[in-house]
Amino acid sequence: MQTLNDISQKIDRALRELALPEEPSTLYAPIRYTLAAGGKRVRPLLVLGGFSLFADDLRGAMPAALAIEVFHNFTLLHDDLMDRSALRRGRPTVQVQWNDNAAILSGDAMLIHAYELIARSNAEKLPLILPVLNRVFAGVCEGQQYDMDFEGRTDVTADEYLHMIGLKTAVLMAGALQAGALLGGADAQEASRLYQAGMHLGTAFQLQDDLLDTYGDTTVWGKNPGDDIADNKKTYLLIEALELAEPSDKARLLELIADKPADRQAKIAAVKEIYARTGVKELTEALVDEYFAKAGALIDAVEVSESRKSLLREVAKTLVGRKK
Amino acid sequence: MQTLNDISQKIDRALRELALPEEPSTLYAPIRYTLAAGGKRVRPLLVLGGFSLFADDLRGAMPAALAIEVFHNFTLLHDDLMDRSALRRGRPTVQVQWNDNAAILSGDAMLIHAYELIARSNAEKLPLILPVLNRVFAGVCEGQQYDMDFEGRTDVTADEYLHMIGLKTAVLMAGALQAGALLGGADAQEASRLYQAGMHLGTAFQLQDDLLDTYGDTTVWGKNPGDDIADNKKTYLLIEALELAEPSDKARLLELIADKPADRQAKIAAVKEIYARTGVKELTEALVDEYFAKAGALIDAVEVSESRKSLLREVAKTLVGRKK
Repeated sequence: MQTLNDISQKIDRALRELALPEEPSTLYAPIRYTLAAGGKRVRPLLVLGGFSLFADDLRGAMPAALAIEVFHNFTLLHDDLMDRSALRRGRPTVQVQWNDNAAILSGDAMLIHAYELIARSNAEKLPLILPVLNRVFAGVCEGQQYDMDFEGRTDVTADEYLHMIGLKTAVLMAGALQAGALLGGADAQEASRLYQAGMHLGTAFQLQDDLLDTYGDTTVWGKNPGDDIADNKKTYLLIEALELAEPSDKARLLELIADKPADRQAKIAAVKEIYARTGVKELTEALVDEYFAKAGALIDAVEVSESRKSLLREVAKTLVGRKK
Repeated sequence: MQTLNDISQKIDRALRELALPEEPSTLYAPIRYTLAAGGKRVRPLLVLGGFSLFADDLRGAMPAALAIEVFHNFTLLHDDLMDRSALRRGRPTVQVQWNDNAAILSGDAMLIHAYELIARSNAEKLPLILPVLNRVFAGVCEGQQYDMDFEGRTDVTADEYLHMIGLKTAVLMAGALQAGALLGGADAQEASRLYQAGMHLGTAFQLQDDLLDTYGDTTVWGKNPGDDIADNKKTYLLIEALELAEPSDKARLLELIADKPADRQAKIAAVKEIYARTGVKELTEALVDEYFAKAGALIDAVEVSESRKSLLREVAKTLVGRKK
């Protein structure tokens, strides 16, 4: 039995060894650079977790697993360009290291390379997984668009937010699980149920991410806590706090998110005080638990032996279990 | 027998009726806008021309035909952004009509939509055509990168130029023809020969385009002649003129392309005088004829009835036959 860590390392190695051309270097160097940045590789692990419910030799799901990781990294590359982010995982983003055009075009080539990997899947299963992946890839673009649309608004509802993260984050995890299951031999209904499990896991993952950004321990989390608050990012915490706060707290919160004050720490502290009075931390934690439990129940219901489920359960735990 | 015009209209109608979502509108409106701009639809016609060599009911090739047109329009959208072009077919480009981020993200969604169309092809043929289309799509990105790399150079050779237009323009036409043939039931060897025919046609098409830009009749061509010269674009004419001109003409030509003078017409006239002394117009015309004849010979060699070839021959003629 391979450990999660063994498998992650295999994924990293396969990403380093992708059959990408050398020339033109301005096109392909940014792709290698982006893929070398690391990451937890949870999306390919979900493909493999879904696959191993129904089949043994993980190599059968590897091209699709890598495709989804390449796609995910393509979205990071283009999102960083659209958001004008200067850093990603501590390194300059592609538009900083090269230029905007390199970011546009190497992103395009990366998206196409994701499909080159998909095309290496089992020919019989290809007509099943290609529509699934197309639909979730389009969904991720829709989610990014909603996220950008929300920036200019202060009246985003919790439902709108959950719909947005459903698209931006969860559908790709759901599609990963569904495609893995289909490649392993699941029937359409089993695969759809695993898609639902992936939606719940992905939603729990994003809400957990919102919590970690505000309440996470830097040493574990590896980022500066409070970035979302400092950047006035519409998170579940903020949206629910605006909904639940007393009128005076709500007015103060709207004031705080109307600009970027000089004193970052004071702003973060002030927002967190209001969060504490509204109880949005506990509310969000309960929602994470609820989505995680729903995903677990769907995995419970898959009619295969418990030993077949161990990889997927382990992946699910890494996804959402990384508590502060 | 449907005329070329009937078929083009069917393609236009199908593009207007694509199953694109309405929301988020910032994402999908630019896609509809781009596809509604018209064009000669030669790439989907090549898919149908390749298909009709081997099969009858053109509907079997329609999803792939539309996919290639959507892909082509995606490249125009992102190329216009990278080139900072303000106009395309007389209308503001997407980044002007909306903004840069809309151009990036709607382009991404358009590329994914091309794959949604590919996925609607015959499931048995999908594993054959997907790798073909992936390879040519990646080639188009490489061609665009080389084209941008060439902007800063004055020492581009004719071979480098032909390699670049081979990627930027010809491979997509080649892949269109090959995919159409495979969908129609061609074997791998027949389809590869048609890929070669498409490479020759595409190269002839681009060289003809270079000629038309400099020598075309505005009333037929519909653009202002001389744009390539005014913009110092590396074309086959310019590259060969730099190669063939007498030293004094070469020095003058290098001077002329070193900047954008106030008097556009005088610059165009001066460059064309040098072109006339080097004979590059006739040289390029001969090359167009040569590539066109090579494509014709490959089409001649396809072992099907002459009546099956009529659509493809007609498409080939529209492609390259639009002389000044």
